[in-house]
Amino acid sequence: MRRQDRKRGDGRTGNQGARRADYGHLAHPFAPQAMFSDDAVAGLHETALRVLENLGVRFLLPEARALFAAAGAIVDEDRQMVRIGREIVAAALASAPRSIRLRAADPRHEQTYAPGRLLFGGSGGCPNATDRVRGRRPGSLSDYEDALKLQQHFDVIHILSPSAEPQDVPVHLRHYAMMRSQMLIGTKPLFAYARGRRQVADSFEMVRTALALDEAAWTDGVWCKTIINSNSPRLIDIPMAEGIIDFARAGQLTIITPFCLAGAMAPVTVAGALVLQHAEALACITLAQLAKPGAPVSYGGFSSNVDMKSGAPAFGTPEHVKMQIGSGQLARLIGLPWRSAAGSASNTADVQAATENMMGLWGAMMANATLTVHAAGWLEGGLTFGYEKFILDVEALQTIAELCARPEADAAAMAYEAIAEVDPGGHFFAAAHTMDRYDRAFYTPLVADLGNFGTWSENGAKTATERATGIWQRALAEFQPHAGAAAADERLAPFIARRTTEGGAAPSE
Amino acid sequence: MRRQDRKRGDGRTGNQGARRADYGHLAHPFAPQAMFSDDAVAGLHETALRVLENLGVRFLLPEARALFAAAGAIVDEDRQMVRIGREIVAAALASAPRSIRLRAADPRHEQTYAPGRLLFGGSGGCPNATDRVRGRRPGSLSDYEDALKLQQHFDVIHILSPSAEPQDVPVHLRHYAMMRSQMLIGTKPLFAYARGRRQVADSFEMVRTALALDEAAWTDGVWCKTIINSNSPRLIDIPMAEGIIDFARAGQLTIITPFCLAGAMAPVTVAGALVLQHAEALACITLAQLAKPGAPVSYGGFSSNVDMKSGAPAFGTPEHVKMQIGSGQLARLIGLPWRSAAGSASNTADVQAATENMMGLWGAMMANATLTVHAAGWLEGGLTFGYEKFILDVEALQTIAELCARPEADAAAMAYEAIAEVDPGGHFFAAAHTMDRYDRAFYTPLVADLGNFGTWSENGAKTATERATGIWQRALAEFQPHAGAAAADERLAPFIARRTTEGGAAPSE
Repeated sequence: MRRQDRKRGDGRTGNQGARRADYGHLAHPFAPQAMFSDDAVAGLHETALRVLENLGVRFLLPEARALFAAAGAIVDEDRQMVRIGREIVAAALASAPRSIRLRAADPRHEQTYAPGRLLFGGSGGCPNATDRVRGRRPGSLSDYEDALKLQQHFDVIHILSPSAEPQDVPVHLRHYAMMRSQMLIGTKPLFAYARGRRQVADSFEMVRTALALDEAAWTDGVWCKTIINSNSPRLIDIPMAEGIIDFARAGQLTIITPFCLAGAMAPVTVAGALVLQHAEALACITLAQLAKPGAPVSYGGFSSNVDMKSGAPAFGTPEHVKMQIGSGQLARLIGLPWRSAAGSASNTADVQAATENMMGLWGAMMANATLTVHAAGWLEGGLTFGYEKFILDVEALQTIAELCARPEADAAAMAYEAIAEVDPGGHFFAAAHTMDRYDRAFYTPLVADLGNFGTWSENGAKTATERATGIWQRALAEFQPHAGAAAADERLAPFIARRTTEGGAAPSE
Repeated sequence: MRRQDRKRGDGRTGNQGARRADYGHLAHPFAPQAMFSDDAVAGLHETALRVLENLGVRFLLPEARALFAAAGAIVDEDRQMVRIGREIVAAALASAPRSIRLRAADPRHEQTYAPGRLLFGGSGGCPNATDRVRGRRPGSLSDYEDALKLQQHFDVIHILSPSAEPQDVPVHLRHYAMMRSQMLIGTKPLFAYARGRRQVADSFEMVRTALALDEAAWTDGVWCKTIINSNSPRLIDIPMAEGIIDFARAGQLTIITPFCLAGAMAPVTVAGALVLQHAEALACITLAQLAKPGAPVSYGGFSSNVDMKSGAPAFGTPEHVKMQIGSGQLARLIGLPWRSAAGSASNTADVQAATENMMGLWGAMMANATLTVHAAGWLEGGLTFGYEKFILDVEALQTIAELCARPEADAAAMAYEAIAEVDPGGHFFAAAHTMDRYDRAFYTPLVADLGNFGTWSENGAKTATERATGIWQRALAEFQPHAGAAAADERLAPFIARRTTEGGAAPSE
């Protein structure tokens, strides 16, 4: 819920006790944990460097191979293989920034993307959408916009993500609709797909146009981010390599995320999957730095395991959490901010879905991930965006966000006088200490029903998933366009019309 | 699931890779975290000592007051108040053991109860039971026994707890039935209620009789544990004080657990609730040590907050987790092992129930609790034991248990050769590295369905909660009495018959 909407709340406007967390800007409350010894982490890194040096990575894009060759890498043009020496990787890691300013249409939604910070993103990349009212269906522009409204509504979601794919918009025009909707609905850091050079150029142009950014403003921090998925194992396709290069040269953020499913596209061991993830991530980070030294780039990992019976991806498993924590160790070794992911393989917003996502969320906490995506609403291993699932996950995120604020610990909070005031066996309901604080002492649940069994039964014995329906419906009903939306739309309209007339831009193959 | 039952599993019988966790014996994998600064923790402790010295605690039992008076505490007999000097508390903390051997009928279920160890207990103290087949009803002996069978079945549940109260057995005979069922069904560490001296003596006698323990065996380690709840604020009733004294003198374990609900029986602040919890726990620990120096005793805390609208207890809230972590800091300050609790306020085994319990589980992990009770099956803030809820929570516990084993990190695990073997864009399904390991590489889910949406729909589109029904039914159907059950029953029968004829033992008031 927005802080300013909460009954007990005072949001960002001051009067915050020590207990009050600013959901919109979080830092990790817990120390990062280890799943590997320091020696083993060094061994993972060393093995990844050997993979890059001796085995190499296949880059389908000639320009990428040329950049590597110019930097001294050994390129086999016939096999499109690039073998990258460790000194090239080391130079790239030295030039990659440690802290990145994520700009936003509303400056209050700016973020510092750096180690120690804690950002959450909703679901990304789901072809389908589902809710209890309309059932499961192919994602539409309406679903995509609904998901943006929900992401904008809750302060604990820090960035905008393409949750439901608008399949009802033709692919050569889809990026116009997606970028337009983001900027009319949201004021948080933006996302653009890297689906080819022309689409990326269009997307950048739309951001600069809608937000009326001159060159200086456009390059002061990062306005757009994208996710780069390698085609594990050891393959980087054309749109991904183009995205790395074009985002780097534009000073925009690539979040490098090999998707290494142990037992399928990656070795079956936790350590082996991490070696492959790390090698691919280092290769892509290096490409970004070769394209433009100093380019904003994030380390990332989305390694988990498959179900060995069906080959289906699994999430929130022990292996997923171990890989998260190991990824965090690798990110700290190279000193970069990094992205992790939660999410669920469940087919519905049930206890399996909750358990899986919460394991991934706590794994990200243990791993001190800078950004955890798919943190709300991700069902079926990403095939479906769930409206109720999103709401249910936000409850978990808000609970975690509250942990970012330490409790008050002054003499008044320790309550000696209040304890003295209440007789043994009495109660504190009417104590002055309670009366002074009760309306802001505790987190107000979003979905949880704390009524007793009788009251709950009288109210229809609704599960949390059933109750979540009304919550997303109300959030959508309350949506109001932001102050700059109409002007942005006016500025964008001629560009979209022209580019549409010109035939739009098909994705790269 | 029992390790030996798992298809891929090899249980306790050797051949364990580094990945394999021994669910039955766990140590914390994560470093304990802080919610308060060291200075603030010292301040909480100091304030609790001031509460004990200046305000005191009311002990209704004259013998308890006499023990305190003999130790130099200032006792007001008219008001039944005991003011305890810090030197008396310090002496008690010095004599309390840091590590306790929890004995069990099956030596494989013995536990070391000490800081750093990780034990889980099922639900305790629920008057009702519920499942999807029979609905919610008052707890019966049958429910109590079912819950014991489930606790015995899953290795990740380390101790036996009284999950559903057998309300169909008269209170003056109930402890005979409860102790008998425990020892016929279970071979894990036992629980006895402290509901009065005669019941406690009966319970101890039954343990010694059923397990054929002579005096030396009975006092070598701990065979029985109980939970001591203070009547917060600052009141210890007669059966609780009797329990502390009698368990201490018999060398059995009291787990001291003030149940401090912030805003109701405790101050509304996290720090204030912890001060009260700590003062009450120190008072009870001190009483145990005065009754018998060196008596096994556990620090404990079950502080959470109430819903300020309804006054209902809440669990898995941010405040609950903060109090867990603060409790862990206080336990470390005094150097004792300690008990925390998870649990849920939800009225059904839904996503709320899962979210609440998992927050409490992870809170206990962050707090490095030695024992986390109510970790499976606890609904309605403890009013109801849920069969499906138990199964669903065991999935979370097994996932956490897996995290206790670090991944393999040798050269073979890092999989350089396997990565070399698989072409870019290929897959690892058929790699020798995979084939050698696939059947033991990953955790096998208990409830999670990793099939795709189509398959899941064809199978009836069952939620995890619906699937859990068949799992507890199968576990109960598979139950086999342990080897010593018949002999124990035979030894117990005359005692129970005699004590029943004598009129049993009513609880203390």
